[in-house]
Amino acid sequence: MPEAQRKLLNSTERCVDEALCGLVRPAGGLCLLRGLRVVVRSDLHHLSGRVGLVSGGGSGHEPAHAGYIGSGMLSAAVAGGVFASPPPTSILAAILHLHSAGASGVLLIVKNYTGDRLNFGLAAEQARNRGVAVAMVIVADDCAFERPGKAGRRGLCGTVFVHKLAGALAEEGCPLDKIVAKVTEVLKGIGESSCHSSPHLLCSQPPLQYWIKERDRESLIVVIYCVCVWGHNLSLSPGDSVVLCVNNLGALSCLEMAVVTRAALSTLEARGVVVARVMSGSFMTSLEMAGVSLSLMRVDPEVLRLFDAKTSAPAWPNLSSVCVSARQCTVEPPALRTWAQEGDAHSEGPLSPVMRTALQRISSALLDRQEELNALDRASGDGDCGNTHAQAARAIQEWLCSHVVPGCPGQLLSVLAGLVQEKMGGSSGGLYSLFLTAAAGHVTEGSSHAGAWANAVHAGTQAMRRYGGAEPGDRTMLDALCPAVDELLKVTTAPSGGEMAVLQAAVEAAEFGAESTRDLTARAGRASYIAAERVILPDPGAVAIGAILRAVLESLEGQS
Amino acid sequence: MPEAQRKLLNSTERCVDEALCGLVRPAGGLCLLRGLRVVVRSDLHHLSGRVGLVSGGGSGHEPAHAGYIGSGMLSAAVAGGVFASPPPTSILAAILHLHSAGASGVLLIVKNYTGDRLNFGLAAEQARNRGVAVAMVIVADDCAFERPGKAGRRGLCGTVFVHKLAGALAEEGCPLDKIVAKVTEVLKGIGESSCHSSPHLLCSQPPLQYWIKERDRESLIVVIYCVCVWGHNLSLSPGDSVVLCVNNLGALSCLEMAVVTRAALSTLEARGVVVARVMSGSFMTSLEMAGVSLSLMRVDPEVLRLFDAKTSAPAWPNLSSVCVSARQCTVEPPALRTWAQEGDAHSEGPLSPVMRTALQRISSALLDRQEELNALDRASGDGDCGNTHAQAARAIQEWLCSHVVPGCPGQLLSVLAGLVQEKMGGSSGGLYSLFLTAAAGHVTEGSSHAGAWANAVHAGTQAMRRYGGAEPGDRTMLDALCPAVDELLKVTTAPSGGEMAVLQAAVEAAEFGAESTRDLTARAGRASYIAAERVILPDPGAVAIGAILRAVLESLEGQS
Repeated sequence: MPEAQRKLLNSTERCVDEALCGLVRPAGGLCLLRGLRVVVRSDLHHLSGRVGLVSGGGSGHEPAHAGYIGSGMLSAAVAGGVFASPPPTSILAAILHLHSAGASGVLLIVKNYTGDRLNFGLAAEQARNRGVAVAMVIVADDCAFERPGKAGRRGLCGTVFVHKLAGALAEEGCPLDKIVAKVTEVLKGIGESSCHSSPHLLCSQPPLQYWIKERDRESLIVVIYCVCVWGHNLSLSPGDSVVLCVNNLGALSCLEMAVVTRAALSTLEARGVVVARVMSGSFMTSLEMAGVSLSLMRVDPEVLRLFDAKTSAPAWPNLSSVCVSARQCTVEPPALRTWAQEGDAHSEGPLSPVMRTALQRISSALLDRQEELNALDRASGDGDCGNTHAQAARAIQEWLCSHVVPGCPGQLLSVLAGLVQEKMGGSSGGLYSLFLTAAAGHVTEGSSHAGAWANAVHAGTQAMRRYGGAEPGDRTMLDALCPAVDELLKVTTAPSGGEMAVLQAAVEAAEFGAESTRDLTARAGRASYIAAERVILPDPGAVAIGAILRAVLESLEGQS
Repeated sequence: MPEAQRKLLNSTERCVDEALCGLVRPAGGLCLLRGLRVVVRSDLHHLSGRVGLVSGGGSGHEPAHAGYIGSGMLSAAVAGGVFASPPPTSILAAILHLHSAGASGVLLIVKNYTGDRLNFGLAAEQARNRGVAVAMVIVADDCAFERPGKAGRRGLCGTVFVHKLAGALAEEGCPLDKIVAKVTEVLKGIGESSCHSSPHLLCSQPPLQYWIKERDRESLIVVIYCVCVWGHNLSLSPGDSVVLCVNNLGALSCLEMAVVTRAALSTLEARGVVVARVMSGSFMTSLEMAGVSLSLMRVDPEVLRLFDAKTSAPAWPNLSSVCVSARQCTVEPPALRTWAQEGDAHSEGPLSPVMRTALQRISSALLDRQEELNALDRASGDGDCGNTHAQAARAIQEWLCSHVVPGCPGQLLSVLAGLVQEKMGGSSGGLYSLFLTAAAGHVTEGSSHAGAWANAVHAGTQAMRRYGGAEPGDRTMLDALCPAVDELLKVTTAPSGGEMAVLQAAVEAAEFGAESTRDLTARAGRASYIAAERVILPDPGAVAIGAILRAVLESLEGQS
């Protein structure tokens, strides 16, 4: 019985009824029989002349069994207390409810637990005494016992296969005796395997039979023992087709579930078994057991057709009907040149020397101010702003040693974007790279006048704002960049020859903006986690922007 | 980063790639781009002239995001390492792959994490430089911060709503700008609430903002704070319609999930909010976090139409399109009379006195042998076999004091079945009840000759075998019953007047069968758990059967 204190429950007494309500209410096709733990299809008129299917058992195995109610699956499910068999009176109520809805007969699908067998059996006999045609199939798919005693083999997640196949047959109007015969035949080909973690990947040993629980997870390598493959009751041969169900017993992460699914698939395919379908998820849980169970069902085209048939049951997954083993699931990605490859393919042009000089000047400036930027950053961040910029500067210097500077400014900016992203690192690297990438499209070999450069810087800044999520006033690089952009954009209306004056004004605006961040509270970036009182120095990122722009100005002044 | 030692993983390095493979391989509609953590639709030709949708982010949130790929949802998903943003080159590869498949444009759906914003932004800018029409929407649905800082509001499970709506629009051929406009409008009505366990059920207090984790589960009563309902960004009024998503963060049991779902529904409905649809399950997990998140989306008929649209995405649940709040989900169960009510409705007949005497004799015999049966049971069971039978005997005696014995034997057996089931308890009560119920149909007021009684005992015994799962030789009641049945069935060929001789032989066969269980190993029932060496006494259940049959014989001898 779950302890409410340690679980997300209102009370242990009410948890089963509350859970049933929580399962039934969202599902348009489900209803509760008032006062009973019996869930039925809400469209029971559809059952007229067809076989009704009832399953059920202890609670704690959700979404079983109510989750499998719907067209093409169960007609009703009866829940007991947590891990307790439901009372015969509730089962009888379910049977009679289907009978009075016009069902031509009722099939009980029961897991092989003594309590369930007796209680469903009793209800079946009581219903027969009232003239209802009732049959029962008992699912005992557990392969964990090599030589099962009378009480041995349990009914596990393979039961869900039976719900599906019997449900598809009933939906087609198949009579009770034919459904029982078909299900009985299919049951011989259903096996539940247990799996176990062990230090060895391959299993020539006899199959182990432990459920994976917290305490069993002791090894690095997960071994999937598909016991049923080797077990005496499911002797699969290469070429045989199966449906695989990877069932989360409760608390396994979806990441682990996917890893186990892959391993189970590989294990089966390595033995030549054709895996026709795979279902992976929480189908028959055991509260929050942190483990997995694997069920296999041998299939032929007819069984597969029934498995693929449509159902409205809320817990049935959205499966595709493509054979898993037959499918090629890798495609070639588009060919992408790296920034370095791009850089090698470019050729020099008239602008190359100017741009090379500017880059050298920027690099020197950033290296000169490395310690200053680090010191500023120690007040509000992790003190590495200068180092990060120095790293970028040295990467640029190295690249300049061994490459031509492309004549097209846009191409240069793209290469620098890749270089900075790879070598500068951190979110600074990402932001500079964004700036350079967004700017690149605005300056080409044919269009590299001052106005184009202003537009490029504007576009880069806008991209930083859009993706970085900061605004001017948040104490970031933008507090230097944005005022500079405002000045730069004036170049379009500036008198001819006034470009350097505009740049001069932009640099001053950037430096003034950076200085003004002394008075700002950090609202983005790492500095936003530091108390406002402690920061009385300017933002190092904004200072770096000022330094870069001044370096560009100085390099251009040197050229003219 | 998950530690492989404590998890069901082969290695931490390979877990993301293995999990992607485990997600992609079972899903017929999904493919991997070779060498990249990029999953794409396998039917990309379908994308021609339509908008392609790309999402993604850190791994560890499975089934997000690859699980939402399919017709009517995403076209591609890009995975990073565990909790790490994917690299821009992978995102760019996804975009270019869709572009070369003929997509008219690409929408990036990005959760509001700095890394994701920057990396998706960078890829978007790079793709734009290559002539691809790219747009981006950023999902920031987290309501946990009342006044979110720039880095505040995270993108959470509400992202799945966006996948669905944008996917439905793209499937319909809606152009990129229209999809962006619609999604941007809908995003204003999406909020993610957090919930918290606290000792008080109702929350007039300001909303609390904790995620439920193991350590927060300290109380008996779970409170669902639908923060967004009260939050500043989702001001819902009575009559407003919403879709509710109850998201398992990883390791919550399905039982708890259903309980939380019910609580969330009640909380919303108590405030007059119309809950149009509910999805409950694992949609955007956080490895095996044992908690839940709640997302709400305000809907109008058009948004609901898009939400309900078909999708082949493997992680999309099998939802119904019936309004949850509008639906009546309880139906009246069939009227069932209890065994006691049945007993009150019957009338006496010529056989009533004989049957009353037999029942009195059986009860006395069982009470006389209570201690003997307990002693036998102590050797192989829990020593209460005599007590259990005595309990049944006293219940019969009490019932006889206040009721007429119905003239129809079948009716009497049915009443006794109910009485024994309720008052005797345990699996003995279940087995006797089964026997009596199955027997009841074979003896009626008009057909109660010795042959009918023999058939009744045979049918009862067969039901015990069928549902109890034991066979003769397993050291159970059947070792007395089955030989007795063999003798009783001879009554049909016995000479007239030889009925008592047949019964005599049956009683002796039962007693001999019971005595013979000394030599048998228990293979069913509780005694099967005790080592064979220790049991040298006969099976108490079989001895009780002998005693009951002898009591019947003696009562009939007294009558003749």
